[in-house]
Amino acid sequence: MPSDELRKSGLLWSLKGPGDLKRLTYPQVEELCLQVRELIYQVTTQNGGHLASSLGAVELVVSLLRSFSPPEDRIVFDVGHQAYAYKILTDRRDVFHTLRRKGGIAGFPRRNESPYDAFDVGHSSTSISVALGMAKAKRYGRQRGHVVAVIGDGALLNGLAFEGLNNVTPLKDKVIIVLNDNAMSINHRVGGMAEHLARISANDAYQDIKRRMKGILSETPGGKMVEEALGRWKSKLKSLLLPPNIFEEMDITYWGPFDGHNVEEMDRIFHLAKAYPESLLIHVVTKKGKGYGNVESSPTRFHGVSPKGSSSGSLPARHVPDWSSAVASTIRDMGREDGAVVCATAAMKEGSKLGIFSDEFPHRFFDVGIAESHLLAFAAGMAATGLKPVISIYSTFLQRAMDQLVHDICLPNLPVLLCVDRAGLVGEDGETHQGLLDLCWGRAIPNLTVMSPRDVADLRFMMFEWLSDPRPALLRFPKGTAPDSKRKTAPWGRLEVLQEGRDLCLVGVGSTVQLMEEAGQLLSREGMAPTLVDLRFVKPLDEEAVRKLLGGHRLMVVAEEGYRFGGVGEHIGSLANSIGSPCRVLNLGVSDRFVPHGKRGEQLQEEGLTPEGVVRMIHEIQLG
Amino acid sequence: MPSDELRKSGLLWSLKGPGDLKRLTYPQVEELCLQVRELIYQVTTQNGGHLASSLGAVELVVSLLRSFSPPEDRIVFDVGHQAYAYKILTDRRDVFHTLRRKGGIAGFPRRNESPYDAFDVGHSSTSISVALGMAKAKRYGRQRGHVVAVIGDGALLNGLAFEGLNNVTPLKDKVIIVLNDNAMSINHRVGGMAEHLARISANDAYQDIKRRMKGILSETPGGKMVEEALGRWKSKLKSLLLPPNIFEEMDITYWGPFDGHNVEEMDRIFHLAKAYPESLLIHVVTKKGKGYGNVESSPTRFHGVSPKGSSSGSLPARHVPDWSSAVASTIRDMGREDGAVVCATAAMKEGSKLGIFSDEFPHRFFDVGIAESHLLAFAAGMAATGLKPVISIYSTFLQRAMDQLVHDICLPNLPVLLCVDRAGLVGEDGETHQGLLDLCWGRAIPNLTVMSPRDVADLRFMMFEWLSDPRPALLRFPKGTAPDSKRKTAPWGRLEVLQEGRDLCLVGVGSTVQLMEEAGQLLSREGMAPTLVDLRFVKPLDEEAVRKLLGGHRLMVVAEEGYRFGGVGEHIGSLANSIGSPCRVLNLGVSDRFVPHGKRGEQLQEEGLTPEGVVRMIHEIQLG
Repeated sequence: MPSDELRKSGLLWSLKGPGDLKRLTYPQVEELCLQVRELIYQVTTQNGGHLASSLGAVELVVSLLRSFSPPEDRIVFDVGHQAYAYKILTDRRDVFHTLRRKGGIAGFPRRNESPYDAFDVGHSSTSISVALGMAKAKRYGRQRGHVVAVIGDGALLNGLAFEGLNNVTPLKDKVIIVLNDNAMSINHRVGGMAEHLARISANDAYQDIKRRMKGILSETPGGKMVEEALGRWKSKLKSLLLPPNIFEEMDITYWGPFDGHNVEEMDRIFHLAKAYPESLLIHVVTKKGKGYGNVESSPTRFHGVSPKGSSSGSLPARHVPDWSSAVASTIRDMGREDGAVVCATAAMKEGSKLGIFSDEFPHRFFDVGIAESHLLAFAAGMAATGLKPVISIYSTFLQRAMDQLVHDICLPNLPVLLCVDRAGLVGEDGETHQGLLDLCWGRAIPNLTVMSPRDVADLRFMMFEWLSDPRPALLRFPKGTAPDSKRKTAPWGRLEVLQEGRDLCLVGVGSTVQLMEEAGQLLSREGMAPTLVDLRFVKPLDEEAVRKLLGGHRLMVVAEEGYRFGGVGEHIGSLANSIGSPCRVLNLGVSDRFVPHGKRGEQLQEEGLTPEGVVRMIHEIQLG
Repeated sequence: MPSDELRKSGLLWSLKGPGDLKRLTYPQVEELCLQVRELIYQVTTQNGGHLASSLGAVELVVSLLRSFSPPEDRIVFDVGHQAYAYKILTDRRDVFHTLRRKGGIAGFPRRNESPYDAFDVGHSSTSISVALGMAKAKRYGRQRGHVVAVIGDGALLNGLAFEGLNNVTPLKDKVIIVLNDNAMSINHRVGGMAEHLARISANDAYQDIKRRMKGILSETPGGKMVEEALGRWKSKLKSLLLPPNIFEEMDITYWGPFDGHNVEEMDRIFHLAKAYPESLLIHVVTKKGKGYGNVESSPTRFHGVSPKGSSSGSLPARHVPDWSSAVASTIRDMGREDGAVVCATAAMKEGSKLGIFSDEFPHRFFDVGIAESHLLAFAAGMAATGLKPVISIYSTFLQRAMDQLVHDICLPNLPVLLCVDRAGLVGEDGETHQGLLDLCWGRAIPNLTVMSPRDVADLRFMMFEWLSDPRPALLRFPKGTAPDSKRKTAPWGRLEVLQEGRDLCLVGVGSTVQLMEEAGQLLSREGMAPTLVDLRFVKPLDEEAVRKLLGGHRLMVVAEEGYRFGGVGEHIGSLANSIGSPCRVLNLGVSDRFVPHGKRGEQLQEEGLTPEGVVRMIHEIQLG
């Protein structure tokens, strides 16, 4: 949104830096939080972004900034959904209206954006491990301040977070873990650990703790006395916490639960935590969407908000389905045809529109929470019994389960279909969420079929063919709308020649077929007659047909929405060389860099993946 | 070992199948266990393998086979280190002497080897998730029997196992999890969770439980009464278990701890467990190496035993260091030069010979347990503070931390050096442990340097150059001995021409440089004068030099010890095509399959990666 649409008066706009927060009275803090919420709401509803989590964490961020002094103290956010208030209150208030826009500030913490951002993040559950690493540096004099990890309850259920927790005690260096518990991850959280957290939160002792804590502090006039008070405090707290808790059992001191919207309470707790000699976990309870009734009541709907006027919004226009919906409908139709079809996701039921399946087959649908490795191993177990699991996972999160894909699915050659969503450039979520590796990584794994349809007709064909002869398979599709069509497709494993030509051969796969079609139209206007090919199968490659095409053209352009390094273009280029073909192969794809946030169209343009860009590169090679 | 060296008499050799186990008296069971142990010891000390874990699990396996009926019941082992007794007692006694030999039985469970092997495994911590998947099939009539996951205490500390545990309750389908706790993983186990397990094991209530359990059973004359007894049993057990435990808090019924060497006790427990209506975890305590004093007292040393006469044994001959030792010494020397160097591993201190570093710098060395994802995120945190973390990890286990490599190290461009051990073909451990993906997967990641030295001189050069200008880097090296030399190497980033020739150009990288050298010698005898190149850097490729070499030769052979699909050979082939070079590029590497166990030399031969194989392929292409 343009900066001049924002009302820039009030307490928020008078602050000179995060240090000023420490001088505010509690009534002023309340006023400030209102203004921060308003700014987040305005910008997020305009630009898109993570609204509900950000609104829920405003008081927590304010208290953290009153209690700690970044960058000397390092505050490591997990995922970063909740970091908008932190961005606004450190040094990005004046540019917050550029959130998630090309050249503007990122939707997640970024070290290259501000010294206040302690670590780059976007995927979940890394914060405890990273904080432990930073805390380790204390004993070498490379870290003087406190190290704080802020993790949500959903992220805590992931294996990586557990590995971090398990390593808190042996490493001995103090970290302060703040568990921001809103009793959800993105959707409702899953599992025994989640219910454990709920039991702790519902503990009657809660009110008691707060009362006694105030008592302790009133007995503690000076700062010098805090530590002494802490000794008593800890034992009192322990005796109060009647239900046993998992953190104490892992030898991590647990304090909580506290009200994550009460800055005064949190200020007091963080003050004590700073003086406490060991690592500890502070459990605060917050409400997603806090302050905005409609967001509070439907936090899942407002988890990620699409920018106004976005073409890939959450409510696609009629007759132009988005890819996720098209895939979900197809899984449902497969479920109707075959009782062995089951479907599972790792906390992405909304994003991947899987309600289409789960509404009809609630007992054949499983959301395992943010646990991608488990998701794939669980699917492998189901497949070993003869079930036909269809897994929906974002490309970027598949990176977290690569060993399960190799070790548990492809090695035993088990029939699991991975529907890989958001494969390619993803737009505003930026670097951490790009889906640029599934194609090249998947291509190297034995027994795995890697394919990408260009439209809904082929999507349905590929998925139903898989159903009739299931095997380990990866089907990738991009963010955005799915071209619809009713047509007969080529057979399984074969490429499709969409247009016979001469001069040169344009090869697309998945999302790049349309790109090639449009580039072909531009070239036709220049008098060329390009051949147009939909590759469809990245692996196994339809080698015989590719060889024939190489034989019939002087130039072949292969475009893929993934990294060029290790991509299928390299494979075809190498094949051309190895058979001594005089046909030159031009590989188009994403260059060897992390692509920052912006609109998906802007990112494609930067990478030259527009019809004009393709034509320009063809001209260059023909001149060169 | 030859089959005729085994004494084939006694109870063990009289069994006709696992069903016979159910009819044995306890004195006979004791006799049988002795004989199984003897067979494991004989074969493992001869062929190599996982001795200590296997010896420790003999009684557990016997009791499982007396209590359950695979293949109808599915017994899913974790890692599979402990499955030797299971192999012997199901249907592989007569071929057990072929353990880990080419064409013989595998060192880990394999579905294609026996219907009794419920799942393929080799990496840790997958069993709970896989078992949950299998149990899910019960409600579709695809799984009638029980599903049992057998997991070690070390494997339980990995995040994937935690994700599995967290999903036990929501999935509702009954699984029986047997926690085989020998108070170690491979080395000593790590972390708060480990200490929690120790506290449970040391619980005074243990003796009490056993006594009362007998009481309950004596009150239960018929099978019909078992369930009723169970009700009481459960509440009694709970009241006995004074220390709270983490499993009950995740809503998983916990029974234990029990003596994992007492078959009678375990028989009784498994009998009850079968009748119990919900998922539960049974904690048995065993001793690694049980029955062999020297193995019991040094289980880590006997974790993996090398075959007799092996050239890659655990005690390398003088002056021919193995790669792991050479790398560990170099890390130590880096540590001497720079106080910011720290070193970390995930439970592979022995395998990667890191004692060389940790003995001298105990406070700069960290073993995080079997927690590869945490390992890399932890390293990233350390690097963000200015430390210079050197991570030692096997190639096959790096597959478990790919997202941390991308998201936490390469995206923020943090200076972590990954020393990737066992990169390439690994021999007897087989399919699950091959290190064939690090090169192609790593090559696609922006900001990552991928390199491989051919000898100790270049290893030291690369590592010390990294120290002077640290960045995200992956240095891969194979299993086996490291050629030693004192020589000046080429500069960072540059390939090295070892021999100028004409005719053709042989390019090796890491382990394949020697292969190319030897192939070159054979070709010289045929009158050819090949150019010999050590590529050194896979990424960034020394493109200028490669272009020059392409310009000067008609044939270039690129050999790499990794999958050809996505490898550097494809990159060079594609480059040759794109610049219109008439030079043909022949890519040698591992074909698109999972390579089964055998000696490393046998595997290399099967893949044509011998000097003779290379020469043969060159002849074929020259004729073709």
